[in-house]
This record gives sequence, structure tokens and C-alpha cells, in this order.
Amino acid sequence: MKILSLDEIKSRIDLSKIIAMQEDGFKAFSAGKVDVPPVGYLKQHNPPGSYHIKYGLIENDDVWVVKIAGGPSGLPSSGMMVAISTRDGKPQAILQDNSYLTHLRTAIAGLISAKYLAPKSINAIGVLGTGEQARMQVDILRDWTDCRTIYVWGRNAEKAQKYKADMESKDFEVTIAENASDVAKRCNLIITTTSARQPLLKASDIQPGTHITAMGADAPGKIELDPELIAKADILAVDNKSQCIDHGEICQAYEQKLIADKDLIELGEIIANSALGRTDKNQITIVDLTGVAVQDIQIAKAVIAA
Amino acid sequence: MKILSLDEIKSRIDLSKIIAMQEDGFKAFSAGKVDVPPVGYLKQHNPPGSYHIKYGLIENDDVWVVKIAGGPSGLPSSGMMVAISTRDGKPQAILQDNSYLTHLRTAIAGLISAKYLAPKSINAIGVLGTGEQARMQVDILRDWTDCRTIYVWGRNAEKAQKYKADMESKDFEVTIAENASDVAKRCNLIITTTSARQPLLKASDIQPGTHITAMGADAPGKIELDPELIAKADILAVDNKSQCIDHGEICQAYEQKLIADKDLIELGEIIANSALGRTDKNQITIVDLTGVAVQDIQIAKAVIAA
Repeated sequence: MKILSLDEIKSRIDLSKIIAMQEDGFKAFSAGKVDVPPVGYLKQHNPPGSYHIKYGLIENDDVWVVKIAGGPSGLPSSGMMVAISTRDGKPQAILQDNSYLTHLRTAIAGLISAKYLAPKSINAIGVLGTGEQARMQVDILRDWTDCRTIYVWGRNAEKAQKYKADMESKDFEVTIAENASDVAKRCNLIITTTSARQPLLKASDIQPGTHITAMGADAPGKIELDPELIAKADILAVDNKSQCIDHGEICQAYEQKLIADKDLIELGEIIANSALGRTDKNQITIVDLTGVAVQDIQIAKAVIAA
Repeated sequence: MKILSLDEIKSRIDLSKIIAMQEDGFKAFSAGKVDVPPVGYLKQHNPPGSYHIKYGLIENDDVWVVKIAGGPSGLPSSGMMVAISTRDGKPQAILQDNSYLTHLRTAIAGLISAKYLAPKSINAIGVLGTGEQARMQVDILRDWTDCRTIYVWGRNAEKAQKYKADMESKDFEVTIAENASDVAKRCNLIITTTSARQPLLKASDIQPGTHITAMGADAPGKIELDPELIAKADILAVDNKSQCIDHGEICQAYEQKLIADKDLIELGEIIANSALGRTDKNQITIVDLTGVAVQDIQIAKAVIAA
């Protein structure tokens, strides 16, 4: 059994290979070839905190993967993955990634979303939120777009300053926007990564031709985009239809019947048939990412095989 | 993080301490102090097989434990446990026990059942089944009873012969019985460890003063004891009421309304108040064991702390 530390995992990252495997994973998922049982949850009261257990198996695959992640509230999420051989049932590898692979596969889902849905030419990248994903989502777009201009907004001014400094050290040009609406006025690619519980962007904020990757809402009650904005999208993509309807960014619009099942398309369907992606530069496109176990399976496999 | 191999785990076994911790675990569970979310299941089709993921947390504990076990059908179940710190959410130990700790804690649950429910004097130990638990359940009774007489029955004559030879090498005197009924006629402590789907023992087979530990039925459709026998028990104990009602040995008797909730008592309740155990040498007592995550939590903790 391989036991891989975070450093060993990082040394095994072959980004282009991982991206290709993530695309394959989304395709397999949307083709119904992945068994993804319901996510397990555990709460702790002392100190308060929570965990989730995500696992799944791609049809006929050699391994399946369990991810255990979470921890006390307020601390960075901890996490690990276990890959188990379907040949003998034995653990094949333990990836002590401390949630790094989750962050990376989530950022890659944003990149894949942009690849199929964002306009060809990006004038500026808008970012709501100043945390880990606000950094990784932008950084990973580096090879895909020449745009190095960021407009960022976050609730906490100090964290926004820190974000600006960090991203400027990576050769981005960063402006701190006064509010979310200001970000939307200046950017045609927007990434939302907050834990907001009131919409930050309204339908009227968004310019034609804008793509939005929304990944903050991962539980009922969280919302970053106004339901009217969700309803306005020309293409409304999700990583997992049932999960996004249950607790993703789109769930309130769905509850309010502003959108219906027929308005949703899974990312894996678009990857399998790119004609289903952006076809016009003026379309407004939105992707709702909630995270699917197939992403964990595929990134664990890539790291193990590297 | 500690990573413990099977050999290291075996070298850390302090049986009396583990037994005490198992009793504490059952008590905590029956006192409502253990969060045991629903067990997760995963099936694989190629090769056919299945896994389960059991996890839980004892109120205010320093670690919680996830157990991943299973594998291709026909191969011995593989398994491992992960203990995660509730202080920082990080994995504290990985126990590569290959299901050894599950076998051991299951055998210990049988020992605890006998301790509180079996008659004081055992004339012979009856065993249905010839597998791992048929061995461990008897072996672990060694310090608790002087009885070294076994009557065993199993479907497969060759495996029964192997069982006889193995247990005789451990100083037991073993007779292979012609059928399950014959076992019951000769023994006042019976352990059932088969995967039968038709009852092996009827109410009329059982002598007054007999204790039965039934642990084969762990899924709907499996049954070792006739529902009439279940209904005849003077004390009907279970490790986990809702789980046993759902898919344990007692579930058919419950469905047929031969027994009701009021007839059931949890092992943890008896451990907390031994007056609820056997009070008369002529009572027929039955324990239905289906396995609870608290057993895994407690044995993992004992091994880590050793």
C-alpha cells in the first residue's frame, strides 16, 4: 500500500493529465457510469465541527475512492483519500492530502467550465471571495487565458488586501472593487467563491457575454446569485443535477420554479458534446459546482498512477 | 499520524482492557451518547462484491472512527479503520487490520453477551457454522468458562472436519453433530455464525436455561433462529434496536408481530444494569448481534492508546 504525504502528492501533479482525467470523470458521471452513493455526514459538538464522507466507483474501474474531509469549525478543512482495489478489496493507497486535492479538483472544474462556456476573449476576471478557491480558480486559468486582470470583492477589507498582494506576486493586476455589482460591470468571467447567504449579484448586474462559475453554495441556505439571474442564463450548467437542485446555487431558483429540470445541463454532457456549450458571444452562461465524488476518484487515480 | 500494520495491531491487543472498553461503548451507545450515522454501502459489479462504511463519534470523544470493509464476493473481507482527531480534524491513525479488529470486537460482543446472559455453568458449547467467528467466539470464552466441550454443525462436512481439527489443537474436545437440533439438545450455550436463509433452530429444539448468541443474520433474508424461538426467549437482547429490527436475526419475528419493541433490550442497557440480565437458571436468553460502529470506535481507540 502506498502512503503519500502532501509533499509527495504535490510532486506527482501532472496538471494536463489530471485535467483530461477530470473531463473523463464528468463525462462518465453524466453518462450514468459512476455509482455515487449519498454523501455521509458527521457532526461533532465539542469542539463544534462537521465532516463529510464522499465515495464512489466508476463502472469497471480498478479502484474506488473514499474521501473523508472536514474538522472543527473555523479551522482549515482537513482531509484524506483512500483508494481501494476492486480486485481484492484492499486499500491500495492513502493520500494524506489535507484537502489539497479537493481544492485542486474544484479549481479544475472551474477551468473546465470556463473552457466550454466562457467567451473566447476575457477582458477581466471577476472574483467574489478572497479565500483558497478565489486564488486557485484564477491561478489555474493562467494557461487557458492571457488575461491577468482581476477585480476582486470580499466582505473583509483586510483579506481583500492580502488577496491583492498575493495575486500581484503571481503577476496578476488586481483591483479591489467596491462591491460585487462593480465586479460584474468590469468582468466577463466571474468566479464566486463566498459562503454568502444573500445573493451578491443580481440579474441587472450582468453584462451580455458573461460566464459565471459559482461554487460557494454547497448547502441549503447558501446563495451568491439572485434566482432571477439564474433564470436569465442562456446556458445553466451543473456538475450534478440532483445535488445542485438539492443544495447548490440553483436550488432557490428551482424551488421558486423560475427554472426546471429541462433548463439544466450537466458539465459532463457539455464535455461529451461541446456543441452544447457556448455558441454565441452574447450568451450568459452559469455553472453551479457542488462537488462530485467522481472528481475525487479521478484525481486520486491520477496521483497514484503518476 | 500512526500507521499500524496487522502485526503491530496484534502486538497491541490487551484483551481485558479492550473488553472493558467495549462494555463502555455499548453502554454509551444505549445511553444515546454515540452518533452513528447510517452505514454507507457500495456495490461493485466487476468482479461482483460490496463494501460498507461504518462510522461514528462518542459524545465529547477525542477521535472518531471510520471503518471501510468488504471486497469481491468469495474473497475474505478486507478492511481498515481510520481514527480522526476531533481537535483538528486530522487523521490520527490508520489501522490496516484487514478486518481482524472487526472479527475480534464481534467475538468480544459474544463474550459480553455470555457474561450477562448465559447460565453460570456451561455443560457444552454449541456452534453452528465453521468459519472465523465459529472459532473466535469460542476461543474468547476460554477465560470466562472452564467448559472445553464443543458440539459443532456446519453445512460443509469438510469444513466441519477442519474446524474440529483446529479447535482440538487448541485443547477443545469437539464433536461434529448431525444437525443443528442435535447441537441444541446437548448445549446450553449456543453460538450461531452461519449465513443461513432458513431457520436452523426451532423453538422446540431449545432446552430451558439455554443462551444463544446469534450473529449470522446481518441482512434482510438471513435467519438462523425460527421466529417462534425468538418469541419464546425470556430475555431478547440486541446490540442496536433499530438495526436489528431492520435486518437482524429478530427482524422476521418482528415483522410477523411475534415480538414488539417492548420485548427488546439493548446489550448496553444490560451492561449498565446487570439486574436486567439473566436472573433464573431456566431462562432462555437470546442476543442478536448486527455490529455497531461504537465497537469499532472503541477497539480502534484501545489499539491506538496501547
